[in-house]
Amino acid sequence: MTISMYSATVPVFQHMLRNLSHILDKAVANAEARKYDPSVLTTYRLAPDMLPFTRQVLIACDAVKNGAARVAGVEPPKFEDNESTFPELKARIQKTLDFLATLKPESLDGTEDKDITFPVGKDTRTMKAQAYLLTWVMPNMFFHITTAYAILRHNGVDLGKRDYLVGANA
Amino acid sequence: MTISMYSATVPVFQHMLRNLSHILDKAVANAEARKYDPSVLTTYRLAPDMLPFTRQVLIACDAVKNGAARVAGVEPPKFEDNESTFPELKARIQKTLDFLATLKPESLDGTEDKDITFPVGKDTRTMKAQAYLLTWVMPNMFFHITTAYAILRHNGVDLGKRDYLVGANA
Repeated sequence: MTISMYSATVPVFQHMLRNLSHILDKAVANAEARKYDPSVLTTYRLAPDMLPFTRQVLIACDAVKNGAARVAGVEPPKFEDNESTFPELKARIQKTLDFLATLKPESLDGTEDKDITFPVGKDTRTMKAQAYLLTWVMPNMFFHITTAYAILRHNGVDLGKRDYLVGANA
Repeated sequence: MTISMYSATVPVFQHMLRNLSHILDKAVANAEARKYDPSVLTTYRLAPDMLPFTRQVLIACDAVKNGAARVAGVEPPKFEDNESTFPELKARIQKTLDFLATLKPESLDGTEDKDITFPVGKDTRTMKAQAYLLTWVMPNMFFHITTAYAILRHNGVDLGKRDYLVGANA
């Protein structure tokens, strides 16, 4: 099959969100085994001016939800951002996966040169859809998933890169 | 332009390696301003059983060098992995960029369903080229670049996500 805007992006988003959900399972298991409060992890930051774990997960989810929706020209669901526990974060990932599953390949395929205007802080930025998905949305998703992973590893959760790369099949 | 195996991957690798090089510049500037030995950063690990900063950079470089070369069917250059300073790491990134610049789009385009066999620890794994580049090579590159970034942020280097997303144009 020839690569397409859909196949180069949405399945990658889905794959990585599933792996993130698996990583969350390992965090919960670690907190149970070592008998500490899981909120130590969900509120943890790698630096005082970095976002805590919960926000890393929410932003990873929203990056792909809003990014794919903008290119597909559909209205994405909006969520309240009130998740604070691991089960709530897992549900948020699942809601994001549920939305991605509704996207039709034909709504993204052929959009390579479509102008996409999106908010960046208080400003907006416009990029062609291919550049937007591959050099903005995708790097954003990977950034926040990897930062979430790093927070857990820094706190001694027994994860390896295979958990990140292949998830529950690790 | 219709998306292709080349355009979906190699320009993204190049973009992110350039941003990584820019991030290294900011680390050097921080060490100079705060008058500490830059090797504190290059040897830093986020967990005792994680790889240090230098290795994060080298693996990010090798992930894309070897990954793109395998799909293109060309022999990648081999490097000695003896870099330890920021200038050496920047040179390694540049050598990787120089190699990526030699890849011809036509050597990657059309390879979607080509079987790629690659080493994973002591084993090998085989994936179709599209899945290999997008769900193995790309996640690996982003993982190591983001982990390098996280090590610097954890140590107080003044970076923001725009440095990671847009590099020297931040």
